[in-house]
Amino acid sequence: MSGQSLAADLTLTGGDRGVVVVVAVIALAALAVGYVLIREVLAAGQGTLKMQDIARAVQEGAAAYLKRQRNTLLVFGTVVFLLLFLLPADSGGERIGRSLFFLVGAVFSFAIGYLGMWLATQANLRVAAAANEQGGRETATRIAFRTGGAVGMATVGLGLFGAAIVVLVYTGAAPKVLEGFGFGAALIAMFMRVGGGIFTKAADVGADLVGKVEQGIPEDDPRNAATIADNVGDNVGDCAGMAADLFESYAVTLVAALILGSTAFGSKGLLFPLIVPALGVVTAMLGVYITRARAGESGLTTINRSFYISALISAVLCTAAAFIFLPSSFSALTDGTQASTAGNPALIAAVAVIIGIVLAGVILWLTGYYTGTEYKPVKEVGKTSLTGAATVVLSGISVGFESAVYTALVIGAAVYGAFLLSGSVVVALFAIALAGCGLLTTVGVIVAMDTFGPVSDNAQGIAEMSGDVTDEGAKILTELDAVGNTTKAITKGIAIATAVLAATALFGSYQDAIGKALVKAGETFDPTAFLVFSPDVLVGVLIGAAVVFMFSGLAINAVTRAAGAIVFEVRRQFREIPGIMEGTGKPEYGRVVDICTRDSLRELATPGLLAVLAPIAVGFGLGVGPLAGYLGGAIATGTLMAVFLANSGGAWDNAKKLVEDGNHGGKGSEAHAATVIGDTVGDPFKDTAGPAINPLIKVMNLVSVLIAPAIVGWSVGADASTGLRVSIAVVALVLIVVAVVISKRRGTAIADAPAEAANRP
Amino acid sequence: MSGQSLAADLTLTGGDRGVVVVVAVIALAALAVGYVLIREVLAAGQGTLKMQDIARAVQEGAAAYLKRQRNTLLVFGTVVFLLLFLLPADSGGERIGRSLFFLVGAVFSFAIGYLGMWLATQANLRVAAAANEQGGRETATRIAFRTGGAVGMATVGLGLFGAAIVVLVYTGAAPKVLEGFGFGAALIAMFMRVGGGIFTKAADVGADLVGKVEQGIPEDDPRNAATIADNVGDNVGDCAGMAADLFESYAVTLVAALILGSTAFGSKGLLFPLIVPALGVVTAMLGVYITRARAGESGLTTINRSFYISALISAVLCTAAAFIFLPSSFSALTDGTQASTAGNPALIAAVAVIIGIVLAGVILWLTGYYTGTEYKPVKEVGKTSLTGAATVVLSGISVGFESAVYTALVIGAAVYGAFLLSGSVVVALFAIALAGCGLLTTVGVIVAMDTFGPVSDNAQGIAEMSGDVTDEGAKILTELDAVGNTTKAITKGIAIATAVLAATALFGSYQDAIGKALVKAGETFDPTAFLVFSPDVLVGVLIGAAVVFMFSGLAINAVTRAAGAIVFEVRRQFREIPGIMEGTGKPEYGRVVDICTRDSLRELATPGLLAVLAPIAVGFGLGVGPLAGYLGGAIATGTLMAVFLANSGGAWDNAKKLVEDGNHGGKGSEAHAATVIGDTVGDPFKDTAGPAINPLIKVMNLVSVLIAPAIVGWSVGADASTGLRVSIAVVALVLIVVAVVISKRRGTAIADAPAEAANRP
Repeated sequence: MSGQSLAADLTLTGGDRGVVVVVAVIALAALAVGYVLIREVLAAGQGTLKMQDIARAVQEGAAAYLKRQRNTLLVFGTVVFLLLFLLPADSGGERIGRSLFFLVGAVFSFAIGYLGMWLATQANLRVAAAANEQGGRETATRIAFRTGGAVGMATVGLGLFGAAIVVLVYTGAAPKVLEGFGFGAALIAMFMRVGGGIFTKAADVGADLVGKVEQGIPEDDPRNAATIADNVGDNVGDCAGMAADLFESYAVTLVAALILGSTAFGSKGLLFPLIVPALGVVTAMLGVYITRARAGESGLTTINRSFYISALISAVLCTAAAFIFLPSSFSALTDGTQASTAGNPALIAAVAVIIGIVLAGVILWLTGYYTGTEYKPVKEVGKTSLTGAATVVLSGISVGFESAVYTALVIGAAVYGAFLLSGSVVVALFAIALAGCGLLTTVGVIVAMDTFGPVSDNAQGIAEMSGDVTDEGAKILTELDAVGNTTKAITKGIAIATAVLAATALFGSYQDAIGKALVKAGETFDPTAFLVFSPDVLVGVLIGAAVVFMFSGLAINAVTRAAGAIVFEVRRQFREIPGIMEGTGKPEYGRVVDICTRDSLRELATPGLLAVLAPIAVGFGLGVGPLAGYLGGAIATGTLMAVFLANSGGAWDNAKKLVEDGNHGGKGSEAHAATVIGDTVGDPFKDTAGPAINPLIKVMNLVSVLIAPAIVGWSVGADASTGLRVSIAVVALVLIVVAVVISKRRGTAIADAPAEAANRP
Repeated sequence: MSGQSLAADLTLTGGDRGVVVVVAVIALAALAVGYVLIREVLAAGQGTLKMQDIARAVQEGAAAYLKRQRNTLLVFGTVVFLLLFLLPADSGGERIGRSLFFLVGAVFSFAIGYLGMWLATQANLRVAAAANEQGGRETATRIAFRTGGAVGMATVGLGLFGAAIVVLVYTGAAPKVLEGFGFGAALIAMFMRVGGGIFTKAADVGADLVGKVEQGIPEDDPRNAATIADNVGDNVGDCAGMAADLFESYAVTLVAALILGSTAFGSKGLLFPLIVPALGVVTAMLGVYITRARAGESGLTTINRSFYISALISAVLCTAAAFIFLPSSFSALTDGTQASTAGNPALIAAVAVIIGIVLAGVILWLTGYYTGTEYKPVKEVGKTSLTGAATVVLSGISVGFESAVYTALVIGAAVYGAFLLSGSVVVALFAIALAGCGLLTTVGVIVAMDTFGPVSDNAQGIAEMSGDVTDEGAKILTELDAVGNTTKAITKGIAIATAVLAATALFGSYQDAIGKALVKAGETFDPTAFLVFSPDVLVGVLIGAAVVFMFSGLAINAVTRAAGAIVFEVRRQFREIPGIMEGTGKPEYGRVVDICTRDSLRELATPGLLAVLAPIAVGFGLGVGPLAGYLGGAIATGTLMAVFLANSGGAWDNAKKLVEDGNHGGKGSEAHAATVIGDTVGDPFKDTAGPAINPLIKVMNLVSVLIAPAIVGWSVGADASTGLRVSIAVVALVLIVVAVVISKRRGTAIADAPAEAANRP
């Protein structure tokens, strides 16, 4: 990277500006298409009055949760905003822009989450109603997929629009401003993932423990006080959290590509990373509209077809765009500053984008294989249910480990492949970021696929609770739900791939920020501070890996703790409200929703603080070398852990479905009980801890990029102050310890619940 | 490290030689003490004839297994020996010495394993017999602890003797020869850990699934055909595997310290790393002899006291030795070549050793806290049994994650602390290695503690099977067994700490080997090839982390597969041999032992090949930079994974014991069933996958150090040959893929077992 510095003085020519404006218009078009899709969803039939009643309760609960979460995040976001404002910046404009777009990123992220949740709660009811009608299978699938399509369009539209505006307004300072934008998006997404994840699984596990295990009543039985909370959870976790998470993936990957693009390719490098996802928007629209279930095929086949078709079109369009917009040699690049690099920019860009698209396809296939009911792994997990819960748990863990390894190797191969495209480190990093952009072209369809899951799950819940559903309708909804489990796992795989690509690419701006700060302090860059085998860097790697384990443990613990509180409350209601079991008394659903809301917002503080403060403690305490090691360790372990948790959870869930479909003894058998245990173990794995690791990596990465200049500035040169540095590290460490101790103090409510065991109804 | 090269032309003065000879004599004295302890153990009473019958069956099974394992390892060892011989070396003497001492290390490792197993099978019977006698608690504890003492003395004696001989004979070439010694020890230990681990847990899980779950008969019931195999497993896994593993930890850490010592401190650096463990031997003797159970205290308290006393004495003696044997400035070091370094060598060495000793104490305390029945974590896991198996599994996983994080942070702090002792990288690395030597001073006592576990477990088995045990005797044995669970977890924590310290230190010789090979090829060392944020290095980190997940998954899968075969066989015997349940027919114990033997030897091939071949594939395929990243990723993730697996398994096992002691409903309750599931999940975690990660890291590290010169030699300069390099990488990769496919093809027998479910007796 020597001799090439990021964020050069870039200017856009009139023609370039025109291209960016076109991109912005395409982004707005995506939003418009999203609006049309929303109208279409809302126009569908709303079923019986009983169904509408239940749906309304879920809608209200979800809205109430997000409102309270918004208030919590406002406080936290304001603090971060102020800290961000205080960090060193090259100019006042950059400082203001960075902080301002931090807010924009945060608001967009929250807005997408809110939209995803709101629309899903509207769609659930309509899917349930459609399934109940004659020949409703196709309509139900379409509504569910259109709902996802609307959220997908909003995700890519807002992401692309935000980035395009930054490029138009800030041009030269765009990279720094984009860091703020990405950070805002990632931070809010992480909180929404963690909070929503805790809510949904606390309600789910709590409802199951009292309902299924103690009372022997089925899932989604209206006599269970936690049943509305369970359905609210699906919306705030799987819809709001997921949508914010994918928006964040989109934004951060785009940010990484734009930052590196400007260095590698001059001002053309600010254009091409916008063009690729813009083309992705176009193909995603196609993908959403061509999704039609053919008679007799599974929902997964339909979705896969739509994915592969749009991926293929994207690949063709992006290759064409590369050769149209980029010259065939570096010396021909407009500003000529990068003339020393050999190779064909157009070819490199095209191949990099294709690598990203292929990566998405391979992950889609791998995840489908490891978590789909029709393949060997889930079938084997299902079979082990005959030798009891222990073998179910062990085989699910093996499936998770194995799939994590192959997914990580595939992602690694993509990074390495993109890296090999150029001998110049900067261009290689840009190629990696472009592979990320290639992946992005599939996000529209991915969101559509993912939303499919919770919407069908919830539709099933509404149908069962209302009792107003036909046998045929129930069968359709069960089938859609099973497809949902796999699509949810696929999304997590794609999301973690974006984390690795973006993080690897962002290391370029990390190094650049350090180099610049050193120049400012009159020092030169010393590569030996970043050697992977240097003991301090290795300790950083170890700490980074440890933080991923800690974060996962905290998230899982938060779920079991919150679930314990739900168990208490549901038992209390069974005991104190007369006639619940007979159906003459009505449970107080709202109280359980309130407890879930309160607990999940309280519980998200510790993992959230850990994510923001750990890199601060390591960076200011040990230095920029160990912090780089820390990020490396967190990325590597985080990737494996995220996929492991997501896929083992997905496999357990579908193994349960296999048994429920009549295999190995069917519902009510011992084998079924064994798979229920596996599924419960998998709940916080796949819906709380696992998916939160993706935004976790991005947050830690962006915090590191943002604080790097300050660490260097306060370490060497005129502003050096060991006292200040160490104080910051100590404060960060103390805050982490306090947060951990507070959450420990809360105890493990689920462990305390047995104290009331004697009072069981 | 620039300007300082490892393995200088060292010569020992007459006085220095004398010191080394004294060390060798101390090592022999340790062996003599071990012999005395063995005599003492063998002299104890052997109980009833029925007990002796059972013990003989276990002895024969264990001996048969190790004999067949020896034959398997002979083939594998010969291949590695030849490959090692072909690798580049500086001189013919170095080449021969390295290969020769590879064999010595391998033979020692196997011998220690064999001794540990043989003595344990003798001691089991005697502990069971002693517990049965009036006031037998103290005698039983003493025999169990003396057995461990004997193995401990043999471990440290052989390790120290081997290293001292290498230093005496090879002096200047000692570092290279020691690499061979360490590699032989680690390789064999890994195979013994994996093979023994698969054997013991396949038998255990298989026995439990048919016996406890299907037939409802207690553990160690003689009607269960797998019961002898289960007890054999405890000896080949927990005793043979563990003893070899700790010998390997001892040898490799010593090797790392000697290699770095010679660079940092000249020839004094070859002395001090021998003196520290020699002092450890002396204090370990004290530790073993002062271990006496006081009336009314738990076994763990006794053991802890003996540990802390000997640790304290070690610290004092080592500090004194540092100031006696080392000068107070680097310029005063005999050969004067390291004069440029600032600091006080004696002080640095003393503090480093103390860091290591303190580290051992902290890990002891941490592990005891997280896995002991008297502390909060295990109590909470026990409580969650009231809400079912899912919460038991989740809470155990949380405990595992949490303890892994704290253990990793403590180890990281020790590495960083030792690193900070000197500004010179070489001296800092030596300080880290010396911290490892400090840890080594506790190995004698640690082995003694660890052996305690399986011996008391087996004694309990023999007592129960024979039926010849008094109630009082049974109670004593149960109590000893619970202590054993914690001591086993502690050993694994200490072992993984040695892996991190040794691996971090060995990175010094890795870099040195690369530097020398580059000089030979006329090139200079380029640090930018090893930057942690370089995409290729990052991909290496990712692959390293992935290999740890893969290895763990393979080991767990091997257990469930082999357990499936046991389930088949035990069911067959119940069905075909008349009168087993009534006690009139006798099961064929030998057949189950044979199946375990065959399967575990077959299953160890894949993880074993992975460990040796993965670094070869990465190194020759991607280069020395990514290989360094690979090691970093493997060390970080390996540390966390190893502790997580060991401690969650330990916590589940003891949570089960808590319930069996009458808490939460006691034996036979639903809570008990839930903890049995947790314990079964934990079995392959804590006894197969977890403990094998320690030798895995060492093997991968030493393979990398050994192949580094070849990678560089064939990459640049006159001998460069991309074809050769790529061919080697491809062959390694193909072999891994073939091994994985073969083991996949074997299917998951446990998943197939249900096909016979209809034939259940």
